[in-house]
Amino acid sequence: MTVPDSVSLGERADLMIRTLASISAEPNRLVRGFLTPEHRAAADLVGKWMREAGLDVSADALGTVRGRWAGEGRKRLLIGSHIDTVIDAGMFDGPLGVIVGILAAGHFARQGRKLPFGVDVLAFGDEEGSRFPVTLSSSLAVAGHFDAARLETKDAAGMSFREVLAQYGKSAADIPAAAYARDEAAAYVEVHIEQGPVLEHRGQPLGVVTAIAGQTYVNVELLGEAGHAGTVPMLLRRDALAGAAETVSLAERLARETKGEVVATVGVLRISNAAGNVIPGNVALIVDIRSGSDAARHKFVDVFKTEVRALAERRHLGVTMTDTRNVPTTPCDPVLQDGLGKAIKSVGGEPISLVSGAGHDGMAMAKLCPVAMMFVRCRGGISHNPAEYTSPADMGLAAAALITFIETATF
Amino acid sequence: MTVPDSVSLGERADLMIRTLASISAEPNRLVRGFLTPEHRAAADLVGKWMREAGLDVSADALGTVRGRWAGEGRKRLLIGSHIDTVIDAGMFDGPLGVIVGILAAGHFARQGRKLPFGVDVLAFGDEEGSRFPVTLSSSLAVAGHFDAARLETKDAAGMSFREVLAQYGKSAADIPAAAYARDEAAAYVEVHIEQGPVLEHRGQPLGVVTAIAGQTYVNVELLGEAGHAGTVPMLLRRDALAGAAETVSLAERLARETKGEVVATVGVLRISNAAGNVIPGNVALIVDIRSGSDAARHKFVDVFKTEVRALAERRHLGVTMTDTRNVPTTPCDPVLQDGLGKAIKSVGGEPISLVSGAGHDGMAMAKLCPVAMMFVRCRGGISHNPAEYTSPADMGLAAAALITFIETATF
Repeated sequence: MTVPDSVSLGERADLMIRTLASISAEPNRLVRGFLTPEHRAAADLVGKWMREAGLDVSADALGTVRGRWAGEGRKRLLIGSHIDTVIDAGMFDGPLGVIVGILAAGHFARQGRKLPFGVDVLAFGDEEGSRFPVTLSSSLAVAGHFDAARLETKDAAGMSFREVLAQYGKSAADIPAAAYARDEAAAYVEVHIEQGPVLEHRGQPLGVVTAIAGQTYVNVELLGEAGHAGTVPMLLRRDALAGAAETVSLAERLARETKGEVVATVGVLRISNAAGNVIPGNVALIVDIRSGSDAARHKFVDVFKTEVRALAERRHLGVTMTDTRNVPTTPCDPVLQDGLGKAIKSVGGEPISLVSGAGHDGMAMAKLCPVAMMFVRCRGGISHNPAEYTSPADMGLAAAALITFIETATF
Repeated sequence: MTVPDSVSLGERADLMIRTLASISAEPNRLVRGFLTPEHRAAADLVGKWMREAGLDVSADALGTVRGRWAGEGRKRLLIGSHIDTVIDAGMFDGPLGVIVGILAAGHFARQGRKLPFGVDVLAFGDEEGSRFPVTLSSSLAVAGHFDAARLETKDAAGMSFREVLAQYGKSAADIPAAAYARDEAAAYVEVHIEQGPVLEHRGQPLGVVTAIAGQTYVNVELLGEAGHAGTVPMLLRRDALAGAAETVSLAERLARETKGEVVATVGVLRISNAAGNVIPGNVALIVDIRSGSDAARHKFVDVFKTEVRALAERRHLGVTMTDTRNVPTTPCDPVLQDGLGKAIKSVGGEPISLVSGAGHDGMAMAKLCPVAMMFVRCRGGISHNPAEYTSPADMGLAAAALITFIETATF
């Protein structure tokens, strides 16, 4: 077993990240949308790196770049992440996973070392969903779950996905061919920056994702009675904002009581006809509820709604609650988690188990095969922001751990 | 002592209210601004009613109509309210006080009954402050506290108060002459709809105001850290909205604990860069605090700010608090309150003591002489709205009680 040099891997990863980040639609901020000229330029660069690493390179019908290192058998370990970005993005979200995948596969290819399984590195192009009102198109196609109805959605300029794809030089008819056969795809592993503060808080560079959280959006509308802030006594009020404040506190308290199993956030709260001297008569808010356990999330939503109805009744407020999103949890494979944990230990880390609160290509890939994710510490938990940062040392440890994981994996 | 017929007085008041309400700048809603053609038409109608009631009519430099019934001595009881309106107003807010004043003074004038003091009915024109960014100009002039700097303020069309006044045919040089001499003004009494639900809730037509509430606006800004709603654990959050929710609940709880002495309202709450999946990093809100006691209001503000600072510290939030308004309480004269209470009893009512949470011309008149107010029940507490309603029966009781008050007053 070779010992990967994590310092050197980290330096190479950092240089590649910075080079890829220079490809942007705008000079002063990082913007790389799906099926844009920047997507193509980034895909070309990634393909070049893959070839230099000794991999066989192809691109599928949605522009996903694939670098293959053949194995002894038919089974393949898929390693991937995405090269599209949000608007005004950081450099690490997505590219890190593609780049450490290339470094890891290249580690074996350069030595000419055949493994019992092949390794495919995948660079997806539609994880952020920033062009069309859909997301994960690239990984859904690879997983064989691309729904052709998506092709009729349109971007902000009014062009359909289908038209954009043709302009990119691809044919929608070839999308089914992007899918792996089920008996071929042994597993999907993704390395990604955490986009949260847990690893930094725990003082560890690497973590193992136990699940990609499921999510429910509950829209709550409270209806009271607007009134003069000076003339209506406290006990005769039907103050919709006072009820909303109690709802926000309730969501926070219930989530805290789960001791990490559920997070709940109110990010939007709007008062109708707000004025300083008017008791609010109508308030709408959105509660974002996420958990690595569907059972825990559903139980939370039930308890939350029951308590909101009770507080509304006590306050003589009307209430309507509507679920506007309901995404199930994607559990990560226990065997793969175990392998990633051992690999992290082999590079000196203490593998922290954590739930991914954000969505990832792994959600689509789980429709094809067992999935797992390794998270890498990022400064301050900041992401989707130019201030996003992961150190070369941590990236090097991630690449080294991925190499060890591949070396010890059995499918 | 004559017994006023409250039913007949109520019917007359109702007819006069409806006639006055036909004078509006717009065909489909009631809009009557200060120093507008509608103001003049309303003032002319009020002057005609005063003359018919047997009063001597004049108008001062700000267009305030004055109907005088001379008494035996120099002292005068001033009875007034306003004939300007908010935009899309109800019919009763303001006009009711002028009309019952005319009915009451006319009661004595028609009989030729000289009282030991004169009675002046005043119809002010700038109580709502809906034209210039100032208010109570008419009553401040009558009280001898009009600040000439107001003349430079401008309306929405860019015309200055001074220009508008000249166009109305008045001269700013005559404003000082609008003021009463201190030894002439014995007291100011105003009848007004409650604009709140207390009298209706207590099943009584009439109430006695103990004070016009003082008011403080505290602007609170809470600064936390924006973050991803899925990736930041509950215990690592610095959620500005969760802090704001606690602040709203705190204001409500502290106000309830005063058992009616203080009311507190959050009517405005804004999240910066709000999105459903983002933990709010910055929230601003306005707390409107009112009380009939300055001491109680100041104590409330102190306790509130101390507790907000404590909750912000506990939540690791930055906090700034700024008082953007600070209006002292206008206490009502105890002897006048007692007289109004007895008068209400004489017409069969149980006088309810209550604080006026809204501002009134009495706040300006208190700079000249002792003041008092009688409140009249209005349906649902609704005001500043076309649905505003007070029954003829209640208006008749108010006029009858005012007559009794005048009959029994001594100055």
